[in-house]
Amino acid sequence: MTYEDWVRKELRELSRSLGFHYTPDVEIKNRLARIRTRMENQKVEALLVVQKMNAYYLSGTTQDGFIFIPLEGQPLLMIKRELERAKVESPIKEIVALKSSREIPLLIQAFCRKLPVNLGLELDRLPVKDYFKFQELFPSAKLTDASSILRDARKIKSSFEIDLMKRAGEIGKKVYHEGQKVLKEGMTEIEFGGLLEAAAKKYGHEGLLRVNSLNYEAYTWHVLSGLTGGIVSQSDSPMGGLGLSPAFPVGASLKVMRAHEPILVDFGTCYHGYQADETRMFSVGRMKQKFIDAYKACKEIHDTVLGEARPGADCEAIFMKTLKLAGKLGYKGSYLGPPGLQTHFIGHGIGLELNELPFIAQGQSYPLEEGMTFAIEPKIVFYGEGSAGIENTVAITEKGYEILTPVSQEIFQA
Amino acid sequence: MTYEDWVRKELRELSRSLGFHYTPDVEIKNRLARIRTRMENQKVEALLVVQKMNAYYLSGTTQDGFIFIPLEGQPLLMIKRELERAKVESPIKEIVALKSSREIPLLIQAFCRKLPVNLGLELDRLPVKDYFKFQELFPSAKLTDASSILRDARKIKSSFEIDLMKRAGEIGKKVYHEGQKVLKEGMTEIEFGGLLEAAAKKYGHEGLLRVNSLNYEAYTWHVLSGLTGGIVSQSDSPMGGLGLSPAFPVGASLKVMRAHEPILVDFGTCYHGYQADETRMFSVGRMKQKFIDAYKACKEIHDTVLGEARPGADCEAIFMKTLKLAGKLGYKGSYLGPPGLQTHFIGHGIGLELNELPFIAQGQSYPLEEGMTFAIEPKIVFYGEGSAGIENTVAITEKGYEILTPVSQEIFQA
Repeated sequence: MTYEDWVRKELRELSRSLGFHYTPDVEIKNRLARIRTRMENQKVEALLVVQKMNAYYLSGTTQDGFIFIPLEGQPLLMIKRELERAKVESPIKEIVALKSSREIPLLIQAFCRKLPVNLGLELDRLPVKDYFKFQELFPSAKLTDASSILRDARKIKSSFEIDLMKRAGEIGKKVYHEGQKVLKEGMTEIEFGGLLEAAAKKYGHEGLLRVNSLNYEAYTWHVLSGLTGGIVSQSDSPMGGLGLSPAFPVGASLKVMRAHEPILVDFGTCYHGYQADETRMFSVGRMKQKFIDAYKACKEIHDTVLGEARPGADCEAIFMKTLKLAGKLGYKGSYLGPPGLQTHFIGHGIGLELNELPFIAQGQSYPLEEGMTFAIEPKIVFYGEGSAGIENTVAITEKGYEILTPVSQEIFQA
Repeated sequence: MTYEDWVRKELRELSRSLGFHYTPDVEIKNRLARIRTRMENQKVEALLVVQKMNAYYLSGTTQDGFIFIPLEGQPLLMIKRELERAKVESPIKEIVALKSSREIPLLIQAFCRKLPVNLGLELDRLPVKDYFKFQELFPSAKLTDASSILRDARKIKSSFEIDLMKRAGEIGKKVYHEGQKVLKEGMTEIEFGGLLEAAAKKYGHEGLLRVNSLNYEAYTWHVLSGLTGGIVSQSDSPMGGLGLSPAFPVGASLKVMRAHEPILVDFGTCYHGYQADETRMFSVGRMKQKFIDAYKACKEIHDTVLGEARPGADCEAIFMKTLKLAGKLGYKGSYLGPPGLQTHFIGHGIGLELNELPFIAQGQSYPLEEGMTFAIEPKIVFYGEGSAGIENTVAITEKGYEILTPVSQEIFQA
C-alpha cells in the first residue's frame, strides 16, 4: 500500500473518530452561491482565492493551494502538497495537483476551456510579488480586487457555522471555570494565561486565533492584572497590557498577581476554525470596589447593546448610544481606553477571523442582519490602576440575538 | 498626570523590573549599517519598512507604524497608536505620531527636506492594496523590491541576537524536562501539547512563533504519537500530524497516546522575539525498537551535519551528504517524509522568524557564514506507524558551531 492509498483508505475514519467534522457539500454550495451573487454584481468573471481562511470557507480544506471559482460551473481546487488529504477534507469535485504556480493557467484552461479576462484577487492580503506573478500568468486578464466580495459574503453565518461557534463557546465556559480553580495569589499573569490555554486545548481548542491582517497577531493569554490593565499597546483595543518584551508587548506579563486586584481575562477559543471571544473578570479575594463598580457599568453597557441587537438596528447608532451611557455612568474619560487613546468600537464581527464584519463602531452605519455574529466588549480603563470589562459573542437571530458564550457573567473570585 | 506622562515616568522601569531587555542603540546602528550597505549595492535610495519583524529588527519596537530609512541620515519612525511607548522601547531618535497613512510623505518631506525617487518596499509581504496606496502617496518615486535587502541583512546574527536565542533555548530545556514529568499514558496529544506550552510560558516563552508568510502558521503543539507521526499536511515539512480539524490540520490531535509509541515533540520557544527550535522523542515505557533505531539514525545524520558546520561549508552539499547517509543507513524511502512527499531540506535559518536564511537544502548552494543560525532537523517517517527525529538550533562560530538548545539528546522516557 502506498502512502496515498493509506490516506484514501484510513484518514477519513481516523479523523472522524478523533472529532473531525467535514464541511458538507450543501454548505459549500450555499457559500459559492453567496459569492457568485456578489461576483455578478461586481462583474467579476472568476476568482482565484489564496488566503487561508477564504480558501477554507470556500473549500472546507486548508491544504496549501489555490481555488479557482468561475462565475458558472464547478470550482477547481489546485493543491501544492497534500492532494489526497485535500480530497478527503473537501467536498469539491475537481481537485488536482499543482507542481508550480506556472501551471495555474494551464490547469484552468484545461478545466474551463478558456481563461478569464476579468479575474478577482484578494488585493487586501495578496503580496505584491504574487500579484506581479499573476500579471505574467494571465497577461490578457484584468486583475481586480475581490476582497470585498469575500468579506461581504462571509459576514452572514449559516447555522452550520454558528453551531461550530457555539462549540467554541462551550470550550470557553469550561476554561473560565477551570481558571477560577487554578488561580492563586503570587502566580504571574503569563503562568495563569498558560494554564488557561492548557485547559482549553484539552477540550479541543485549536490554540491559534486568526486575524486577517499583515501585522496584527491574535493570542489568548490576554491576562491583565492591576496596573498592566491600564497599558495601551500596538493593537486597536482599549488596553494591550505589558506583554513579555518589546517583541511581544501585549497580553500577559511576568507581573505577579496580588489579592484584590482586578484581573481581566480576554480569552478566545477556536473550534474547527470558528472562534468565540469573551472577557471575564477574576480576582483573588474580593476585588477593589472601584473595579466592581466599573464592571457593573460595563455589564450595563453590554446589556444595552443586547437590548438593541436585532435585524435592522444601525451599528453606529448602537455604538453612539453606549458612548452616551458611559458618560452618564461617569466613565467618559475611561471608557474604551485612557484619554486620547480611546478606541471607537465596542463590537467586532467574528467567525473564522477576529476582524470580520460587522463593526459596532463610529463610522459604521449599516444595519445588523440575521446570521451576523460579533463580540461585544465594553471596557473601562484607569491607567496606573487597572481595567474592567466584559465580552460575549452573539449571533443575530430573526427577532433578536443569541449568546454563543454561555459562561457565567459573575466575577470569578478565587 | 496624563496617560502619556505616566508612560514616560513609569513604563521603562516597570518593564525592566519584569524582564524586558531593550535593543541597545549600538545594535540598531549596526543593523542600519548592514541594511545600508545592501541598499547602496541595489541602488535603493530609501526604505519604507512595514512588516512587523523587519520593523522590530530595525527599530527595537513592534508598536504599529512605519520606519523610513534614507541611505544617509537618521531613520524616521512613524507610529500609529502608542507613540510614547514606542519612544520608551526604541533607541531611534526621531519618532513621530502618524494620524493617517496620507501623512507619510508629508512627515518624510518635513524630516528629510525631500522625497525619495527610488523607494524600497517589502514586496514579498506588502499587500497589493497598500502598494497602490504608496503609488498614490509617492507619485514620482520608483517603487522597488527591498525584500532581499532585509532578508539578506538579517541572515547574520549579532552576539546580542544569539544571546537572546540562547535564552530561548534555556526555556526549551526546562520545558522538555517538565514534559517528561507530566507525560502519562492515556493523555491526548493536544493535552500534552498544552501542558508543554503552559510550562514554557511560565518561564517567559512568548507563545507565538513567527513565519514570514501569507499562509503558513507556526505553532508549538507539534506532538505526534504513533500513526499521526506518519501523516503529511499543508506545511513543507516531513510530517504535519493530524491536528484538530480541517481548519487546523497540523500538530497535536485528540488521539490518545499509548505506551511504547514513538512520541515526536517539535516545540520551539521564543524570547524577546528570538526563537529556538528543537525536537525530541518521548515515550511512555520503552519505545518500540524500530523507532529507537530510526532516532539513532537521525542523530547520526544530525551529527554529520554538525561535523560539516563551519564558515565556508556549502549548504546544498551538506544536504546531499545527508541524503546519501540516510540511504546508506537504510532509510532511503522514509527519510524526510513518505515516498513521493519527501521534503528537500534538513535545516532552516531561524531568528525572529522560522524561515530565514540559510536553508540547508537542495538548490541552496551558498556558504555558511559566521553568525548564521539555523535549525537542523533530520526526520524519518513510516506512514501508518509513526516517525522519529531530532532537531537543534545552532549558530555558526568563527571555526565551527555552537548549539543553542542545550537539552539532553536522550529519548525522554516517562
